[in-house]
Amino acid sequence: MNRIISVSREFGSGGRELGKRLAEALGVPCYDRAIIDMIAEQENMDRHYVASVSEKHIQTFYPGTIGRHFAMLPAFVTDNQISKVRSRQHQLLVELANQGSCVVVGRCADIVLREMEPFKIFVCADEVTKIKRCRQRSSREEGLTDKEIKRKIKEIDSNRKAYRSIYTEEKWGDPKAYHLCVNTSERDIKSFVPGIVNLINDWFENRYGGGDQHELN
Amino acid sequence: MNRIISVSREFGSGGRELGKRLAEALGVPCYDRAIIDMIAEQENMDRHYVASVSEKHIQTFYPGTIGRHFAMLPAFVTDNQISKVRSRQHQLLVELANQGSCVVVGRCADIVLREMEPFKIFVCADEVTKIKRCRQRSSREEGLTDKEIKRKIKEIDSNRKAYRSIYTEEKWGDPKAYHLCVNTSERDIKSFVPGIVNLINDWFENRYGGGDQHELN
Repeated sequence: MNRIISVSREFGSGGRELGKRLAEALGVPCYDRAIIDMIAEQENMDRHYVASVSEKHIQTFYPGTIGRHFAMLPAFVTDNQISKVRSRQHQLLVELANQGSCVVVGRCADIVLREMEPFKIFVCADEVTKIKRCRQRSSREEGLTDKEIKRKIKEIDSNRKAYRSIYTEEKWGDPKAYHLCVNTSERDIKSFVPGIVNLINDWFENRYGGGDQHELN
Repeated sequence: MNRIISVSREFGSGGRELGKRLAEALGVPCYDRAIIDMIAEQENMDRHYVASVSEKHIQTFYPGTIGRHFAMLPAFVTDNQISKVRSRQHQLLVELANQGSCVVVGRCADIVLREMEPFKIFVCADEVTKIKRCRQRSSREEGLTDKEIKRKIKEIDSNRKAYRSIYTEEKWGDPKAYHLCVNTSERDIKSFVPGIVNLINDWFENRYGGGDQHELN
């Protein structure tokens, strides 16, 4: 059985970097935004559109209007299109996970791939660290005040929470919904890699009762 | 600077076992219920009394009566005695942590010892695993039904939550209040030890910017 590692994360927590570094250390691919590009290409859709549809809760498209004929719904979004993108993302995740062991960042992979018994990680950090990381990692945040970055973090995390609620009643960020929650406040992401790789390997070996043929490093 | 590791845990999650195993692997003492015995002996008090006072929120002693002259308060409990036990526990934790690196299970050590910058772990598990562990670890639970054990778990965890609220506004079990949250559902506790030891060492080395003289294993 392939070994799937899912990484859920707060915006700015360094979860994506952690996912990439874990994948590198384990010698497996890391699927992240690339999934969006694959869908956009295969379905001949705009990647920004796919990105917004595939990670947002449906209510975020028509706030306050749900049940009122979607009067405020942007013209280009239809239920059918949303369903199409979502089911394509779901299908693609399953295909990729069946191809081999991998790390998936975001996309509710922990829920979508639950039958493959992924090792589920949640990454969080304090506000100061997240703001600092946002500034370091992206030029888009350069001109923003701390208050604006905080608002952005809150908005993106609210979307992630809501998106997760489509798939499960388990709460986003509840330690019982994951195998491991890591707080990256004031720490280099790479310092977590050896320990987590160790935990991942021991977890999968323990699952199969003492090692199997698909061992990762 | 000594390295302090605090282990907070849900009842039945195996947190105490994890604390002991980590201490053994790190070659440091593990302080747990022994603290209760030390206080009871030093203060010439009954250990059951010390145990109940030192881990419960004050409200649990006079439910519904707070503000009504403590009419239902057991005769042997007074505010003074509660304060005495609590401040003795606080003082003892600081003394022990100053003596050398150690693991402390429970006692709100993560908060009480916050100035020593402990590595903070929270241990949780699903209900099925916790009930199973309760049955395996204690003969007291042998005659109880699952429902009764569930009630006991809930009661003890509510006490822990309330006790923590005396010291901090941070929520018990919130991943941001700890460095690491570990879910032990369906796993042997010992399988987590090598990975967590690795994470602990890297965390402390990272803190001091590349190793210090008090390194643990």
